[in-house]
Amino acid sequence: MSETSDLQRRLLEHEVLLEMGVELASTLDLARVLSLALQKAEELCHAESSSIWELDDERRELFFRVVRGRAAGEIQSLRVPLGRGIVGSVARSGRAEIVNEVQDDPRWSGDRDSHFTTRNILTVPLIARGSVIGVLQLLNRSGGEGFTADDLRRMQLFAGILAAAVANARLYSDQKRTFLEMVTALSEAIEKRDPYTGGHVRRVVTYSVLLGQEIGLDVEELEELRLAAILHDIGKIAVPDQILQKPARLDAGELQVMERHTVDGAELVGRIRGLRHLVPGIRSHHERLDGKGYPDHLTDEQLAKIPRIIGVADTFDAMTTDRPYRRALTPAAAAEEIARLAGSQFCPVVAAAFGRLYARDAFTLEQGERVLASLSALVPQG
Amino acid sequence: MSETSDLQRRLLEHEVLLEMGVELASTLDLARVLSLALQKAEELCHAESSSIWELDDERRELFFRVVRGRAAGEIQSLRVPLGRGIVGSVARSGRAEIVNEVQDDPRWSGDRDSHFTTRNILTVPLIARGSVIGVLQLLNRSGGEGFTADDLRRMQLFAGILAAAVANARLYSDQKRTFLEMVTALSEAIEKRDPYTGGHVRRVVTYSVLLGQEIGLDVEELEELRLAAILHDIGKIAVPDQILQKPARLDAGELQVMERHTVDGAELVGRIRGLRHLVPGIRSHHERLDGKGYPDHLTDEQLAKIPRIIGVADTFDAMTTDRPYRRALTPAAAAEEIARLAGSQFCPVVAAAFGRLYARDAFTLEQGERVLASLSALVPQG
Repeated sequence: MSETSDLQRRLLEHEVLLEMGVELASTLDLARVLSLALQKAEELCHAESSSIWELDDERRELFFRVVRGRAAGEIQSLRVPLGRGIVGSVARSGRAEIVNEVQDDPRWSGDRDSHFTTRNILTVPLIARGSVIGVLQLLNRSGGEGFTADDLRRMQLFAGILAAAVANARLYSDQKRTFLEMVTALSEAIEKRDPYTGGHVRRVVTYSVLLGQEIGLDVEELEELRLAAILHDIGKIAVPDQILQKPARLDAGELQVMERHTVDGAELVGRIRGLRHLVPGIRSHHERLDGKGYPDHLTDEQLAKIPRIIGVADTFDAMTTDRPYRRALTPAAAAEEIARLAGSQFCPVVAAAFGRLYARDAFTLEQGERVLASLSALVPQG
Repeated sequence: MSETSDLQRRLLEHEVLLEMGVELASTLDLARVLSLALQKAEELCHAESSSIWELDDERRELFFRVVRGRAAGEIQSLRVPLGRGIVGSVARSGRAEIVNEVQDDPRWSGDRDSHFTTRNILTVPLIARGSVIGVLQLLNRSGGEGFTADDLRRMQLFAGILAAAVANARLYSDQKRTFLEMVTALSEAIEKRDPYTGGHVRRVVTYSVLLGQEIGLDVEELEELRLAAILHDIGKIAVPDQILQKPARLDAGELQVMERHTVDGAELVGRIRGLRHLVPGIRSHHERLDGKGYPDHLTDEQLAKIPRIIGVADTFDAMTTDRPYRRALTPAAAAEEIARLAGSQFCPVVAAAFGRLYARDAFTLEQGERVLASLSALVPQG
């Protein structure tokens, strides 16, 4: 190969890497981009399959972040202890390796996916802030030659960019998880002052995202709905014990104090710029389409989507749990009630979504937990 | 220039860009790296001075993120409305520009720094997720020629990497700020149930970081101290109104319930993996070196640094505010009390730090606010 064409090839490679770097750096939500990154890595090194493994520091195990070119389903749940196998040994040593005769390597334990035969492996550690956080692996260079020193150099450059992106996404998602967990813990602690509503917050969150998904909200809207639902009763922090814990129906004056939790909660959250968008879900979850709700007596055209959803979830849970002054309704009776009040108390769209879920036995906490789990999974797993 | 040497030059440039990309992507705390990035940009384009401007979306203004090569102090506080001047017009149009005869450009309003004369300007927008988030600017190409189309191409590549890094750092710091604000708002809402302790949380936070800085904690420790101090009384959420609001000294049984706020708060925070490191600050801020504190009667060698600091801050604030059963001490009397109890109730190191601050009139909320402001400034400003 002439010097010029070699230089040109390397220049092109660099351009791919740079583009990839910009794309990777441009997102803190990696799932989509990482798969594209692997595709580029395969192209650059003519590999048949590739994967990114991530190190779970606490359990000292590696797990797949992304796999390309093999039956991902079968091996997706594989976990490899640090130090075990080729992937584990590169993660421990922090040194890149090429193994071109994999059958001869004592660390090799065979293919898990019976439709794929591994011949050669290139493994590069992902190092961020001085620590191994995972491993990039390419399998089977096409042609008989196996991976080259040139491939290794290329992938080490690539790994630098990948590692930074993965580390940032982790940091971001850890912070996000901590935030959600903290806000949930505090909401639940506030709820615990009310002896009649154990587990209410968690159930309203779960029912809300279930309804939201049925209505067709996108992921961002579901995330917003989840956070608003966690916080919907946060204003109860300002309700005195004697009202919150009264073992009987509240009188008019007490009711007025109790109803202030919508305004107080909205006021608290509204002071925080990054959460201001949650105010309608908190302030208006006790409004009714017919204007007979509180605190603002909003009507149909004034009421946002999120409080409509939380309203149904909240009421269903209130109806199906015992209160000091009345017994719980059965779910069937509550479902009838929601259908009856569609258009007056409840948004007909949300009530209809509830009706569909209920009719197919899908309005359950288990189903809702699944929606919540899918939301968390969008955040790269730490 | 021969084709080969041109290719070689471009290859080297790419390598610089790639390295820079990895470095930029490797941090969510940009201040240090951005200045290095500007240095590289100046080298690549032979510029005398450079800067990164960031767009404040809410105020529709650009402000300096970093400046190199000019009297940074003088111009650091400059803010330019979107659309105004060359920088404002590139930020609005989203199109890169070279202005080689700056005196002839009607948008040019002259140099702010009297020691620097601008001749030519290269301005590239920083675009992340489709929106302009700032501008990269180089001033004065050395030699008489001005900036070239080649410089522009290079800096557009560079701007892609920069923009992604700046956008990520912003997202991260916004999330962090939202978390701190939310936790503070909730702590204050919980505190408001106790009519005798208005503003206590905020003052304990402020005093704590002031003491922490005097003792020589590093930034990470100060951040941890701040968060622990915000949360130190969070367990009071579980204390009944009748005890929290009793307008008299508590009896033994009530005291026992009140003292549980340390355990309850630690339990709540301890359930959250990302906050578990804060547990000692919350659980042990009422311990004493002599073992007579609560809840665990820890002694000197068992007591961590953070609760020692919060303990002094908390007690000073309690002593200097009125309580239902006693009047506030004067600050001078409280200072004497802290000195007297050093070694028995209080850690002598913290008490000595308090003593030094107090003696030079620096144990004030204003001084503490300054420490807090410097902590926030470490997070890139959004």
